[in-house]
Amino acid sequence: MRVLGIDPGTVRMGVGVVETKGSAYKLVHYDVLKLSSSEAMTLRLGKIFNFVKKTISEYNVDAVSIEDVFVAVNPRSALKLGQGRGAAIAAAVDMGVEVFEYTPREIKQSVSSFGGAGKEQVAQMVGYLVGVKDIRPFDAADAIAISICHINRRPYYDCCSKR
Amino acid sequence: MRVLGIDPGTVRMGVGVVETKGSAYKLVHYDVLKLSSSEAMTLRLGKIFNFVKKTISEYNVDAVSIEDVFVAVNPRSALKLGQGRGAAIAAAVDMGVEVFEYTPREIKQSVSSFGGAGKEQVAQMVGYLVGVKDIRPFDAADAIAISICHINRRPYYDCCSKR
Repeated sequence: MRVLGIDPGTVRMGVGVVETKGSAYKLVHYDVLKLSSSEAMTLRLGKIFNFVKKTISEYNVDAVSIEDVFVAVNPRSALKLGQGRGAAIAAAVDMGVEVFEYTPREIKQSVSSFGGAGKEQVAQMVGYLVGVKDIRPFDAADAIAISICHINRRPYYDCCSKR
Repeated sequence: MRVLGIDPGTVRMGVGVVETKGSAYKLVHYDVLKLSSSEAMTLRLGKIFNFVKKTISEYNVDAVSIEDVFVAVNPRSALKLGQGRGAAIAAAVDMGVEVFEYTPREIKQSVSSFGGAGKEQVAQMVGYLVGVKDIRPFDAADAIAISICHINRRPYYDCCSKR
């Protein structure tokens, strides 16, 4: 199974594709979409939508895992972040791929056994788990962690989830 | 030219399609997509995306006009609202239709000459402009107002906008 993890954002959006190989993880692809904050939001959302669609299609993704952000600094940033998530989720829906959401705490716990881990620590653990050193930038490492989070929790969804 | 106006939301999303006939407006279609707040957000976003795509395709829409909300009550509602907007805009991008954004003030001014008009007043003015009495619910009347707003401002975009 191949899972696309998405670290949503409207200036930088990280993606990571991880495949399960028995109990091990194989890192298939990772990238960061960089957008300009001076560009119109509608254009940026279009780029996010097409970027996610292209990644799903190019890497034959079976499921999408995305960070569910509950708290944002202020309504304005929350609105922007929400739009990025909405466009990314719409892309998955359009490709017929199921979307799963995890809180930042669940994601960090799945790679570091510690829900309050920092970005550096997440990047280190992700690198260790997929056997690739120094995964940068952090947005990409976060996206890989989001993908791993779903892979770890998948047995639960397969048997018990009503989502 | 046919313009689809969208009043975004993740529980109720209003749409209205207006056509220009010389200097008059012809109301082609209006509807409200009702979603359950108990339903998973990813499913709701998928429904919004498909609803907007279907409306664009069914009514041969040339442009999409959407409310640009700057202020939300709190970060949590802003995040939800943003996601709905993101999914709707992604649908327009996927259909190759250009998207224009207007503030609530610009929208109200375009139908009532008063930026602080209430929902009842907007619905009355919209009904008068398109020659249809008692347009309800308000979400649909708002969407029609959003469509009319772009029609009124289109000459500006055609000649001067760099958006």
